Amino acid sequence: MRADVLAIGTELLLGQIVDTNSAWIGEQLATIGIDTYDHRKVGDNLDRMIEALRDLLREADAVIVCGGIGPTPDDVTREAIAAVMGVELERREELVEHIAKLFGIRQRDMPQNNLRQADIPIGAEPIPNPIGTAPGVRAEVMGDDGKKRVVYAVPGVPYEMQQMVNDFVLPDLLELSGERAVIVSRSLKTWGTSESGLAEMIAHRVDAQQNPTIAFLARGIEGLYVRLTAKAATKDAAAKLIEDEERELRRILGDLVFGVDDETMESAVLDRVRDRGWTLGVAESVTGGMVGTRLSDVPGASDVFRGSIVSYATDVKRSVLGVTAENVVSLECAKQMAEGAQRVLGADVGIAVTGVAGPAEQDGQAVGTVCFGLAVPGAPTEAVETRLPGDRIRIRQFGTISLLNLVRLRLDALP
Amino acid sequence: MRADVLAIGTELLLGQIVDTNSAWIGEQLATIGIDTYDHRKVGDNLDRMIEALRDLLREADAVIVCGGIGPTPDDVTREAIAAVMGVELERREELVEHIAKLFGIRQRDMPQNNLRQADIPIGAEPIPNPIGTAPGVRAEVMGDDGKKRVVYAVPGVPYEMQQMVNDFVLPDLLELSGERAVIVSRSLKTWGTSESGLAEMIAHRVDAQQNPTIAFLARGIEGLYVRLTAKAATKDAAAKLIEDEERELRRILGDLVFGVDDETMESAVLDRVRDRGWTLGVAESVTGGMVGTRLSDVPGASDVFRGSIVSYATDVKRSVLGVTAENVVSLECAKQMAEGAQRVLGADVGIAVTGVAGPAEQDGQAVGTVCFGLAVPGAPTEAVETRLPGDRIRIRQFGTISLLNLVRLRLDALP
Repeated sequence: MRADVLAIGTELLLGQIVDTNSAWIGEQLATIGIDTYDHRKVGDNLDRMIEALRDLLREADAVIVCGGIGPTPDDVTREAIAAVMGVELERREELVEHIAKLFGIRQRDMPQNNLRQADIPIGAEPIPNPIGTAPGVRAEVMGDDGKKRVVYAVPGVPYEMQQMVNDFVLPDLLELSGERAVIVSRSLKTWGTSESGLAEMIAHRVDAQQNPTIAFLARGIEGLYVRLTAKAATKDAAAKLIEDEERELRRILGDLVFGVDDETMESAVLDRVRDRGWTLGVAESVTGGMVGTRLSDVPGASDVFRGSIVSYATDVKRSVLGVTAENVVSLECAKQMAEGAQRVLGADVGIAVTGVAGPAEQDGQAVGTVCFGLAVPGAPTEAVETRLPGDRIRIRQFGTISLLNLVRLRLDALP
Repeated sequence: MRADVLAIGTELLLGQIVDTNSAWIGEQLATIGIDTYDHRKVGDNLDRMIEALRDLLREADAVIVCGGIGPTPDDVTREAIAAVMGVELERREELVEHIAKLFGIRQRDMPQNNLRQADIPIGAEPIPNPIGTAPGVRAEVMGDDGKKRVVYAVPGVPYEMQQMVNDFVLPDLLELSGERAVIVSRSLKTWGTSESGLAEMIAHRVDAQQNPTIAFLARGIEGLYVRLTAKAATKDAAAKLIEDEERELRRILGDLVFGVDDETMESAVLDRVRDRGWTLGVAESVTGGMVGTRLSDVPGASDVFRGSIVSYATDVKRSVLGVTAENVVSLECAKQMAEGAQRVLGADVGIAVTGVAGPAEQDGQAVGTVCFGLAVPGAPTEAVETRLPGDRIRIRQFGTISLLNLVRLRLDALP
């Protein structure tokens, strides 16, 4: 089974917005084992939309159209689908009610334009949109070869689109594909080795496995993900397959795995500190506040995260954090910063990063030199020096995640 | 004249990478007045590439193909173009030399695969790649209608692609389009009004102007840009047209304009502090380090930016910054934080932000409530309260840029 994607919007062609929807949909299709071969973007132009849709339907079993179902006159996805079906639009009373209700709830007058969103091609089926006014459309079209094709129209707003694709489109595609199985997937997130290194470690599992399948996703600064996708008759059976393989992979990958699915490196660190009933303080220099930003990105961080001293200037390291080390990119300085963070922020755990992001070297230290410090209760303060690759931006990003990863590993190693 | 875009790569369809190249190219084409109507992504599959290319060439005068010109066996863009031209590939000695030289410089052995990059369709022209091993390709194809079409193959790596498009493809397209003019563009970056408000303010200029043209680009958290694009016989004449219109627009837009082109809100703030011979310190709470991160993103920030006290916990606001205000999301607290930043960080200017990003309200203050503080030498410390829209992420981002914008405006207003 093959499903292609058509993204609608002149702003996409003009580069005012980058189309991220088709990549997201492609990823979901791959996860459930449906092929996708051709993704297109066209502007808000009825003729070109009709042409693209007809063209895609010649080869694909299904086409997912993103965008163009809003209330304004240039939203003409409904019209394009009706034209391809060879039918008119009809106003559906239950949709008028849904839209009016949404506007009622929001206590605003409903612009008459919004009623256009209650128009659906005759013979097509609306797809519920619980979080927006624009319903989706599911339409069947007969191909030149006499085989049925399906067109789905979904919103262009990413979170509305994602909910509709997850709740309606993917299950519908699975059913059409004759796939009676339930599909469950899970990503093991890793940090600390290269893609080829990771591939080598688990090559024998990848080769041995058909269900769950094992795939790699390189996410740059977020790490390398190992994605498991299992098919089974029930959700429980699929989850069991994933669980068994996850246990095997974790045995091989050990502490390279920092989390699964929605877990992030920063939530992994906060969870470990919270589990011990501790709090966390940061002292950062080269990263300028990025460590604090990532930790406070996590909702509910405030019960663990106390704050960060961004000591960008050398004399702030001395006056605020009590650093006496002569060289401020050194193991000694990183240790003193970590202990300073503990003391000044009243935190149980103090972590620190200092380094040279460039553009120029600093005090004879090469660009990319970064030192991490870690102070925990009941253990000697320690520090690690490393050399990070890349430009100023990458050194700061790598420095941030490398520090958090180090903290994770050290906390796990504590008795 | 119409130029379409074909992005190559199975990883794009599977969502492992988001295709940002076609949006970037679309923006450049719009800037020089060339239409673009159809952007496609296909995988590393020779047959589908040939089909997509033939299909696009039926309507477009030119097609820019991104990616698939690397050294590995699945890079088959060269083969696809040769097939569409109906010719074979030939190995070009000057390209072998260029590639060998690059490997010589890098002191590595040249994998034989890399020689594939010296193969060009017979009759096509290589496009120089000064920063990578993969040369581009410029090929002419005769359309069914007997009219000449042009295909450009450029790298998929964004910075190599951008340099090749800027240096070769855009000038070549301009020449093909019969356009003898030089095109110069400049973006005025604004913060502080809505897109419709901005459009209303300068509607009469937009209507009156044909050269330079005036367009809006909404960049979310980075602001609204007003882009001027001028055509003239020489670069100087085009620059003069831009200058004259920029003067008019700045007269109307006033202090909404915070910079042009590569200037950012954070560089605007640092420049103003530097111009007065001052230094800058930050105290931030709800933003968790984002203000410090943005300021230290600017290379060379260290002569002005001293650091940031991320006082996430209430008692850190008290112990480190000396806050005594009972309510820590209040004008009084914001002022005390700004003065604390001045004192603790030894900075001439202290700026501060405190607020509630959610998910839950805090001390009876609604989610979105944010207070900014500003302390400058020789003036009373001031504070501003506002209510920001959106979720946790947007409140933190908006809080950051709103604080920086406030500081910019206040510094400009100082005697």
